[in-house]
Amino acid sequence: MLKGIAASDGIVCGQVYRLVEPDLTVKRHTITNLDDELNRFHQALEAAVSDIETIKTRATKNLGADSAQVFSAHIVMLQDPELIAAVEKLIRQEHLNAEAALATVAQRYEQSFKDLKGNAYMQERVTDLHDVIKRVTAHLLQVKLPDLALVNHPVIVVTHDLIPSDTVSVNPCYILGFVTDLGGRTSHSSILARSLNIPAVVGTQTATADMPEGSTVVVNGNQGQVLLDPSEAELTTVREQMQARIANQERLAKLQHTVTTSADGVGVTLAANIGTPQDIPNVLRNGAEAIGLMRTEFLYMDADHLPSEDQQFAAYKEVLAAMAPHPVVMRTLDIGGDKPLPYLQQKPEANPFMGARAIRRSLTHQEAFRSQLRALLRASAFGNLRIMFPMIATLDEFRQAKAIYDDERSKLTVKQVPMGTVKVGMMVEVPAAALLADRFAQEVDFMSIGTNDLIGYTMAADRTNQDVGYLYQPYHPAILRLVNRVIAAGHNAGIPVAMCGEMAGDPIAVPLLLGMGLDEFSMGAGSILKTRELIAKLNAKDLQSLVETALNSASTSQEVITMVQAAVPGLLK
Amino acid sequence: MLKGIAASDGIVCGQVYRLVEPDLTVKRHTITNLDDELNRFHQALEAAVSDIETIKTRATKNLGADSAQVFSAHIVMLQDPELIAAVEKLIRQEHLNAEAALATVAQRYEQSFKDLKGNAYMQERVTDLHDVIKRVTAHLLQVKLPDLALVNHPVIVVTHDLIPSDTVSVNPCYILGFVTDLGGRTSHSSILARSLNIPAVVGTQTATADMPEGSTVVVNGNQGQVLLDPSEAELTTVREQMQARIANQERLAKLQHTVTTSADGVGVTLAANIGTPQDIPNVLRNGAEAIGLMRTEFLYMDADHLPSEDQQFAAYKEVLAAMAPHPVVMRTLDIGGDKPLPYLQQKPEANPFMGARAIRRSLTHQEAFRSQLRALLRASAFGNLRIMFPMIATLDEFRQAKAIYDDERSKLTVKQVPMGTVKVGMMVEVPAAALLADRFAQEVDFMSIGTNDLIGYTMAADRTNQDVGYLYQPYHPAILRLVNRVIAAGHNAGIPVAMCGEMAGDPIAVPLLLGMGLDEFSMGAGSILKTRELIAKLNAKDLQSLVETALNSASTSQEVITMVQAAVPGLLK
Repeated sequence: MLKGIAASDGIVCGQVYRLVEPDLTVKRHTITNLDDELNRFHQALEAAVSDIETIKTRATKNLGADSAQVFSAHIVMLQDPELIAAVEKLIRQEHLNAEAALATVAQRYEQSFKDLKGNAYMQERVTDLHDVIKRVTAHLLQVKLPDLALVNHPVIVVTHDLIPSDTVSVNPCYILGFVTDLGGRTSHSSILARSLNIPAVVGTQTATADMPEGSTVVVNGNQGQVLLDPSEAELTTVREQMQARIANQERLAKLQHTVTTSADGVGVTLAANIGTPQDIPNVLRNGAEAIGLMRTEFLYMDADHLPSEDQQFAAYKEVLAAMAPHPVVMRTLDIGGDKPLPYLQQKPEANPFMGARAIRRSLTHQEAFRSQLRALLRASAFGNLRIMFPMIATLDEFRQAKAIYDDERSKLTVKQVPMGTVKVGMMVEVPAAALLADRFAQEVDFMSIGTNDLIGYTMAADRTNQDVGYLYQPYHPAILRLVNRVIAAGHNAGIPVAMCGEMAGDPIAVPLLLGMGLDEFSMGAGSILKTRELIAKLNAKDLQSLVETALNSASTSQEVITMVQAAVPGLLK
Repeated sequence: MLKGIAASDGIVCGQVYRLVEPDLTVKRHTITNLDDELNRFHQALEAAVSDIETIKTRATKNLGADSAQVFSAHIVMLQDPELIAAVEKLIRQEHLNAEAALATVAQRYEQSFKDLKGNAYMQERVTDLHDVIKRVTAHLLQVKLPDLALVNHPVIVVTHDLIPSDTVSVNPCYILGFVTDLGGRTSHSSILARSLNIPAVVGTQTATADMPEGSTVVVNGNQGQVLLDPSEAELTTVREQMQARIANQERLAKLQHTVTTSADGVGVTLAANIGTPQDIPNVLRNGAEAIGLMRTEFLYMDADHLPSEDQQFAAYKEVLAAMAPHPVVMRTLDIGGDKPLPYLQQKPEANPFMGARAIRRSLTHQEAFRSQLRALLRASAFGNLRIMFPMIATLDEFRQAKAIYDDERSKLTVKQVPMGTVKVGMMVEVPAAALLADRFAQEVDFMSIGTNDLIGYTMAADRTNQDVGYLYQPYHPAILRLVNRVIAAGHNAGIPVAMCGEMAGDPIAVPLLLGMGLDEFSMGAGSILKTRELIAKLNAKDLQSLVETALNSASTSQEVITMVQAAVPGLLK
């Protein structure tokens, strides 16, 4: 039994697929049978090319031909006659084993690439070279080089920590569950798991050490436990629980096309947070009425250079058209600091969460910001677009960002580019912005409360740091006071207020947020239907007095939880 | 002309003293005159011992015999006959130059120390060995090894970045001014400069590159400029400005023994923030009515192991006795995260400002916390002690810390240890605590607003990161709303509210804080007299309407500044 953090509900049984970087240390030795060695080398080359073809096919399907182009370049590299001849020569003349010969030649290539200093293109080729050599070496060493794009049957993914690029080309149907060594409830793996409705246990510390490839395990995402080598009796119980889960999902699926209304007739919007256009089918399946947050980083993170305006336009247009006439809130780039992009050469910061990220960076690096705004504006003709600026702390920042937006809009108007009506709003995630929401509400079209970061800054706790994880308290009365203040400020000014953090789909928080009058709840798609079911049982008017008590009389998170559970019987945290 | 950040007021002219780590690379060569080389070695040894004697004398005077003991150990190391014989042997037998011979022997010693793994004492000796070898090598290479303890005449200190241990044994009278490459207005160098009333320019980027040893420069701490090689005419102007400054200081000095009262008779307390018992004379000279914040880290930072309870007791007693009957607020240990202690083996954190620091660490590492509380309680018999817990975010944390305090107090009571009455309060520096101040005020004896961190978290900006320095806005309406909320909450509950951040001595902030009813202003000692002069000119009652307008109608920092300057003519930012 392995313990971790319950990151995404559900219980599932399956076989372990280890996404762990293998040891690819190459040993040099002298070989005797030259022909065998040359054969071994060519077989490894072919196997590597075949791997890359598979990855390329999936990437083309999921990300478009543009993004998959890099894999064609990789194949060309492996078919380079000069490289092949050089390796063959070392095997023949020096009787070197194939992996050592390959390593020697690769090193030579790398050096000649590196000598062309200042040539950014050649520097990127070094990275590509590493990738392809690694793949051939793995085949020579008969070591598995794991890649989710190569998975062709349902598995339980076990990894140190999942990074966005790991999952970009995977078929979600093949992932039964996740188990990771690192991470917390709000890390990338957890958010992904919840949006795909896949059970997950994170932060186990030792999963990659303890869980062998191919072994059978049970992932219990409700209790944050992983059962290794379950007995027949345990498997029977698990199967019953899995069946109950499916029945539950079938019941919820009936709510897919219904509107979201409380028992006393208050209507709210349930929206989804997404990261790429590929998330749309899952979002629609889960009955989202809008996209409340589209993170636009994916185009930037999965590339080795800034995406072009046209690439961005195509991606934004796809999402807007798929969701129309429903609104889509696109957040402008939130990079820098904690989400560095290798090709942007950002300098490391002592506290990246409190550094030059998001709008702060956009205002000082306007070219990328303006190109994104142009792409968004051009895409606005194809749907119902709302643009949201992240990490706004002061009105000066919002005004500057808005002025740049107005400038780009005017220029496109002059060029007679077709554009739709666009609302321009802000994410409220810096405590200063929440405290001054009444002043902001005079100037923005909408506000969306980003609770993940708002809670982090308000409690002065990095939510990705396990030692202070206990301070990530969404129900802390201080957080509720800030949230309530933002909602009230928005309504006083006649603008809608949304929430796009994890908190919006949290069953303890939902009654409080409904009582406060939140207009839109945006969450991982996997939480939408159960939130719709919960809201249908709640009486919004009655909840106002619960809110009053929580705001004015509660001193701790635990007191708030107890109050909510007393007011809404049967609610589980 | 070099530009930087104006960190501490005043203009001064003087000679550059470079506190810059020199290049101590040793080259190996064969020597011919053995006796000369042996002489050279012994002279360098003696010069190094003499340096250490000087440093030791000053450390004994400033820090007490205990802290200076490490220097005796250093001298013993340099007089070790075995080490000397080994070096002599290499010089004689292998005709090695003295510095190379010393390096070879040092390496051997180091290896034998390191082989004793797990022996913490021996590991510390490696550090000591490095220190003493470095000093001898510097003399052999005829390179100056800078050390502020060796400065014996007034200079302008030019350094990359000043760290607390650099300044611990310096005679403050010998430092005319500071110029640094790094840092901002709230970095250690700046705070130190302001508390000593020394002009300083920080964050120049290139000071250490551009300012040669011994050159004459003018440091203008008002405008953040450094003039290199000033002309005679420029020097004349500077001398006039320096004289005006002295006249100003003489006028302020007359306020040393007066009470602090506004024009309409509202009395407040002006207190000082200090770091060590050595700060007391400067504090008294500047007419402080209390110590509003004693940072207790100095005992921990300048040692190579945790200080004993008795060492702490002696230091706390010294401060309490010197200030009695005035109150002294001692903040319990704020280490971890951004202030790591090498001997505590803290793991690095991605965002140390939002990590396991201060009370968070004290609650999980109770032995050090309890030992500090016992030392404080024992010292309480000698003065008027208030204990303050830093970084409190939740009531649970305060209650836990208070319970540990109560437990230690009971144990000392049983042992009949004499103790004074002690008030136990909290630092309000986490936004959540400020937002919930009304609930905290029911359980604490006093609150003190720590604005440096409170502003950082509320604006989500690391104040030590130059790229987001523009967000460190003490007058931002969001900050004023939080501060006002804490003061009001304290007064509703009948407890006093202090402020111990930089903001408390800021001339634009003072009228606002007086209007809000702040009870105690605690600041760098150097700001006390001019704040007393300013408050005497202000009408507290009139300022209440200024506060109302700033809280309810201002949207930006600039608007607040304009409002204050209109309400209090002649005020400079």
